[in-house]
Amino acid sequence: MSPSIESRILEIPAGSDPGTQIPLTTIRGARPGPVLALIAGNHGYEYPPILALQRLRSAIDPAALSGTIFMVHVANMPSFLGRTVYFSPVDGKNLNRVYPGRPDGTVSERIAYAITHEVIDQAGYLLDLHCGDGNESLRPYVYQTVTPDAQINTDVARLARAFGIDHILIDRNRPTDPARSLYCSTTAITRGKPAVTIEAGFLGTTDETSVQQIVTGVRGVLRELQMLDDGPPPVANPVFLDPSEVIFSPATGILFPQVERGQLVEQGATLAHITDFFGERIAEVHSSLAGEVLYIVATPPITKGQPVGCVGHIAT
Amino acid sequence: MSPSIESRILEIPAGSDPGTQIPLTTIRGARPGPVLALIAGNHGYEYPPILALQRLRSAIDPAALSGTIFMVHVANMPSFLGRTVYFSPVDGKNLNRVYPGRPDGTVSERIAYAITHEVIDQAGYLLDLHCGDGNESLRPYVYQTVTPDAQINTDVARLARAFGIDHILIDRNRPTDPARSLYCSTTAITRGKPAVTIEAGFLGTTDETSVQQIVTGVRGVLRELQMLDDGPPPVANPVFLDPSEVIFSPATGILFPQVERGQLVEQGATLAHITDFFGERIAEVHSSLAGEVLYIVATPPITKGQPVGCVGHIAT
Repeated sequence: MSPSIESRILEIPAGSDPGTQIPLTTIRGARPGPVLALIAGNHGYEYPPILALQRLRSAIDPAALSGTIFMVHVANMPSFLGRTVYFSPVDGKNLNRVYPGRPDGTVSERIAYAITHEVIDQAGYLLDLHCGDGNESLRPYVYQTVTPDAQINTDVARLARAFGIDHILIDRNRPTDPARSLYCSTTAITRGKPAVTIEAGFLGTTDETSVQQIVTGVRGVLRELQMLDDGPPPVANPVFLDPSEVIFSPATGILFPQVERGQLVEQGATLAHITDFFGERIAEVHSSLAGEVLYIVATPPITKGQPVGCVGHIAT
Repeated sequence: MSPSIESRILEIPAGSDPGTQIPLTTIRGARPGPVLALIAGNHGYEYPPILALQRLRSAIDPAALSGTIFMVHVANMPSFLGRTVYFSPVDGKNLNRVYPGRPDGTVSERIAYAITHEVIDQAGYLLDLHCGDGNESLRPYVYQTVTPDAQINTDVARLARAFGIDHILIDRNRPTDPARSLYCSTTAITRGKPAVTIEAGFLGTTDETSVQQIVTGVRGVLRELQMLDDGPPPVANPVFLDPSEVIFSPATGILFPQVERGQLVEQGATLAHITDFFGERIAEVHSSLAGEVLYIVATPPITKGQPVGCVGHIAT
């Protein structure tokens, strides 16, 4: 097959709610090799991955490529154009919690179903590209899922290091049932395909550092999979975060964060305090771990039970 | 009546969709005087006004106050807690386009109705406190509405100067029908009460400069209305922006702004370009005025027909 770049729109037909579109690029290399899926925009307010895939599409030379790259430029178009954090403006669902989706579900479920079958089922490896959502101040890190399968664990660890971000969160709590994979990367893993979730960027910004970190990370993975000759080497000495903990809010009100992304905290440290809507203090949020703040919610709204932040214990 | 501070929740009952709550503070002064309504959070992703009212509630001494202050701490609670830009996550409506509201409408309309009758009808003056929404990079300015009524125009101009922000946008295009006032401040004006809309803050941040500018501005208005003895003086030499123009997007895609808030531009200047979702350039957005960029959309999503920015011609 001759090397090529093809961009097209994958139509998601209307169902119980309106349909939408997924912009998809396929880069076919000059030689056989792995098939790597790159997914941006599972969350619509997370912008650096979307900008990074635009750049990679114009920068990767198919003549130099072995194998195939799929790029999902904006997985969640209703949330992207609707500028919504976490949830679709159409059905109120979090796309990255409804995989593998359903062909007869609401629009988020129909998007997940299409990505599962049109992209993940056709790929051998997957990178799900995220960042701190519109409300999250986040330092870059990679989720490395641990499964009951030693071989896939080895391959996932290899992808995690290849991306070049030096903070790797060991995640032992992802689903193992392919029918209820919930997350995009878990959908690949439960189907036997190595995958990682990447986090680089924060608070609805489009900062050049984050965009470039994603571009560079993808190049590292392409080198590791021998799809391109050049690219940066894997991280030599990553910081492993194990265990880690998401801290949930005990109250609804106005959140005042007391720490910054990347800050080291003691066990019991105050991560934030919460006031009622008039300004009276009603709760404090503490870390049950000593470790590094991977993200902290840094905008005022907070609802009881929502994440306030994530702290990872430094295991190395 | 003895001076007092009372904070309470105004319940918006359920209707065709769930109900919500509006946190409201009433500060009654030691002496008679004007009744000033301060409204924050008509847009739920605009945070500095919400933080500024918390501070003012604890800083204003009722014993030193003449008259009464109403504070609506978060007008649009569904949008605030749902972290949505422009539109309610419940009914998809822009609260600041459905005033004076309806008692039997959707939740945004029921909120507007309650604020109209419980707050605006009880007040003599109104400040509607906004900032650039989550997607808008904005320099501070005040909207000064021009009406067919010379006396109210004089009083509105006095409020605009008293707030202390030196950029004042002359707005000749607000509705005059009290039954279709659409905007919160216009609801006051069409009922004969001087009101201005304030803009200070941007892009979902909670920066101290913007919060403090709103606190100081409210103090300037309290001084001007002789409700408090101290406070900063009015702006001596404001920059009047007249005419001004909102520039709308000719396309749906990814927006790349080419100017910054507060930048001076020539007529015809390129404000932004737009690519399709793959990265191919499909449109440019130009200013039809020479003037100052009051705000520019600075996050990637853009839909055909949405605002890209606003340029004000410097009239002074």
